[in-house]
Amino acid sequence: MKNHRIAVIPGDGIGGEVMPEGLRVLEAAAGKFNIEIEFTHFDWSCSDYYLKHGQMLPADWFETLKPFDAIYFGAVGWPEVVPDHISLWGSLLKFRREFDQYVNLRPVRLMPGVPCPLAGRKPGDIDFYVVRENTEGEYSKIGGMMFEGTERELVLQESVFTRTGVDRILRFAFELAKNRPKRHLTAATKSNGIAISMPYWDERVALMGGEFPEVSWDKYHIDILTARFVLTPDLFDVVVASNLFGDILSDLGPACAGTIGIAPSANLNPDRLFPSLFEPVHGSAPDIAGRNIANPIAMVWSGAMMLDFLGNGDPRYRAAHDAIISAIEAILVDGPRTPDMGGRATTVEVGAAIAAAV
Amino acid sequence: MKNHRIAVIPGDGIGGEVMPEGLRVLEAAAGKFNIEIEFTHFDWSCSDYYLKHGQMLPADWFETLKPFDAIYFGAVGWPEVVPDHISLWGSLLKFRREFDQYVNLRPVRLMPGVPCPLAGRKPGDIDFYVVRENTEGEYSKIGGMMFEGTERELVLQESVFTRTGVDRILRFAFELAKNRPKRHLTAATKSNGIAISMPYWDERVALMGGEFPEVSWDKYHIDILTARFVLTPDLFDVVVASNLFGDILSDLGPACAGTIGIAPSANLNPDRLFPSLFEPVHGSAPDIAGRNIANPIAMVWSGAMMLDFLGNGDPRYRAAHDAIISAIEAILVDGPRTPDMGGRATTVEVGAAIAAAV
Ligand SMILES: CC(C)[C@H](C(=O)O)[C@@H](O)C(=O)O
Ligand SMILES: CC(C)[C@H](C(=O)O)[C@@H](O)C(=O)O
Repeated sequence: MKNHRIAVIPGDGIGGEVMPEGLRVLEAAAGKFNIEIEFTHFDWSCSDYYLKHGQMLPADWFETLKPFDAIYFGAVGWPEVVPDHISLWGSLLKFRREFDQYVNLRPVRLMPGVPCPLAGRKPGDIDFYVVRENTEGEYSKIGGMMFEGTERELVLQESVFTRTGVDRILRFAFELAKNRPKRHLTAATKSNGIAISMPYWDERVALMGGEFPEVSWDKYHIDILTARFVLTPDLFDVVVASNLFGDILSDLGPACAGTIGIAPSANLNPDRLFPSLFEPVHGSAPDIAGRNIANPIAMVWSGAMMLDFLGNGDPRYRAAHDAIISAIEAILVDGPRTPDMGGRATTVEVGAAIAAAV
Repeated sequence: MKNHRIAVIPGDGIGGEVMPEGLRVLEAAAGKFNIEIEFTHFDWSCSDYYLKHGQMLPADWFETLKPFDAIYFGAVGWPEVVPDHISLWGSLLKFRREFDQYVNLRPVRLMPGVPCPLAGRKPGDIDFYVVRENTEGEYSKIGGMMFEGTERELVLQESVFTRTGVDRILRFAFELAKNRPKRHLTAATKSNGIAISMPYWDERVALMGGEFPEVSWDKYHIDILTARFVLTPDLFDVVVASNLFGDILSDLGPACAGTIGIAPSANLNPDRLFPSLFEPVHGSAPDIAGRNIANPIAMVWSGAMMLDFLGNGDPRYRAAHDAIISAIEAILVDGPRTPDMGGRATTVEVGAAIAAAV
C-alpha cells in the first residue's frame, strides 16, 4: 500500500481554523477506506513566517515541497500587513507556476440544502466544471511604465499565450468532457475585442475539437457567457477558459449555485511531475478570523478532491471521495450549520459532524 | 431652438427592424416636448454596404459623420458572411475610438413587469450604472506571434492603459456618483493577478477618490465582483471598470436584472468634440432577424439616453427622456409583449404602443 505524503500549509486568517477540520475529515475517510496518508505541517504565512523573515517562503521551498504527493493549502493573505501582490505572487501563484499546476479545476454544483440565489433552480439543475488555465495568459508581470509622472504616462501589460500552455489545458478539458454526462464543452473567448491572443485561442479550440469527435463544443464571448451563467446555468457541462476568464467564471459559477463560501478547487499538475495543490476558493477572510465561525466545508471538499486525485482512478479512493461528498450533503441538509449558512455552529462542530458522517 | 442632426445606422439583422420603432418613439417624444430632430440614414452594414464594397464604411466616413450631433446605431454583425473581428473593428469599435467615445455608460435596473432571474428581488432593489472605459485597455491589436507553426509557438497580446485614458473615465464615474442617491463608487480591479496594469489602475482610483471626498468608494477584484453582482446587486451605485471588465459587467448586470434583451447603452464623448453613439446592448441576432418579433425596447431606451445627452441638462429633454422611460415601464407591465417576454406581439406593435404611451 502506498503511503501518501501531504504538505499541509494552513496559511493566514481562517486558513488556520478550517485546516484542522479538513484534516479531521481526511483522517476519518482514510481510516475507513484504508488509505495511508502522512501529513507534514508548514507555518508559511503572512502572519507568521513573513513577519519573522520578511519573505513568504524559505529559499529552499521548492526542494522541500517537491517530494510531496500533494499540498493541502488553507488560504493566503493578510492585506493590512502584507500587500496582496506580495503575498500571492510570493506563495500561491509561485506554487501554481513553479510546480506547473497548469489545471485549476473547480466544480460548480447546486447542492441540496443550499439556498440558490437564482430563482427556481433546484439541485441537479447546475452541475458543471470550470477548467481554468493556471500558469500563463493574462496573469503576468511583463510590461512597464513610460513617461512616468507626466501627462503622457502610460502602462503596457503583456498577456502570454503559448501553444503548449493553451493546448494542454484544452486537451485536459476535452478529456474531462468526454467522460461527463452531456459530453459538452464550452470555451470562453473574447476574440471580437482582444484581437491577437483570443483569435489564437479560438483557433486552438477548433483544432482540438477536431480530435474529440465524441464531444460537442461551442464558444461564447466572456461577456455573454457570464450572463448565461445566470440565465441558463443548466446548459453547461465543462467550461474551459484562460487564466483570467477562468478566475472570473470559477467565482461566478459558485456564486450562482449559492456555494461561493463552500467551493473547493484543485490546482493540478496532471503529469504528476510535481505536487498538486488543493485549496478552498474562499480566501483568508481576516474579518471573521479567530472566532471559530468559519465554514470548513470548502476545505473538506478540497480534501475530497485531493483523495480522488491521489487515487488516480483507484475505486477505493473514489469511494472515499464520494463518502466525503455524501457527508457534506447530509450536513448541508440537516446541519449543524455555521453562521454564513444561517446556523450557530462553530467551525469545529461542523468539521466533527462531517467526520462522524463519513 | 436648436435643430439636432442625428445619423441613423440601422446596421444588420434585427437592427433594421428595431430602428424604425426607435425613431417612431423619438418622433413622438420630440413632438410632445418641442424638440427638433433631423434624421439622416446610412446603409452601412455587412448585409448591404460590405457585400457591395468589400469594406464596412466608405473612406470618408469620418468627415461624413463628424458634423452630426449623435449616431443612433442598431446593431452590427453577420458572422456567417463577415467575420466578427472585421465587422466590429471596421465599424462599431472604429467609431468608439476615432470619435473618442471614451465612456460606455450602461444603466442596470430591475424594471417593473420584468421577471428577475435572481430569487427574491423586486423593482428598486437593483439600480446602478456601469461606467466602462471604451477606447483602450485590453482591447488592442498590438502584439503578435513568434515561432509560428512549431511547438514553441507563442502569442503576445498587449493591453494599454494611459494616464489620460484612465483618469478621464474615473473622473466621469466619480462625477456621476456625486449626483447619485448613494454617492458610492465601486472600482473593478484584478491587481492581485494582473501585475502591471491593474496596480496602476488602483493607484489612479485612489488618487481620484481623494478629489471627491463626498463620494465613498471601494474596489473589488473582478472575480468576486461578478459574484457580488449575483449575490448583493443592491450594494452598487456606480461601478467603474476597464474596457474588458466593463464589457463583462455591463452584460452580467442586465442579465441579473432580467433586462439583457432590453438594455440600452451610450458611447459618449462627454467633451462633445465628436458625435456620441447610442445603441442597444443586444446584437444583430441573425437567428430571429426578418420575422418582426425582435423586442424594440433596447433601441427605444437608447433613444431616450440620446435625448438626455443632447439636452445637456435642459429639463425639457430630461422630461422627454423620463416620458419614454415611463412609457417603457407601462408597456413592460401591461403589454403588448414580444415573444422573448412571453407575449405574441410584433416589433411594430410594441414600438407603436410605446409611442402612443409617450
Ligand atoms: C488570490 C488570487 C490571486 C487568485 C487568482 O486570481 O488566481 C484567486 O482569486 C483564485 O481564484 O485562486
Ligand atoms: C461586439 C463587441 C466587440 C462589443 C464589445 O465587446 O465592446 C460588445 O460586446 C459590447 O459590449 O458593445
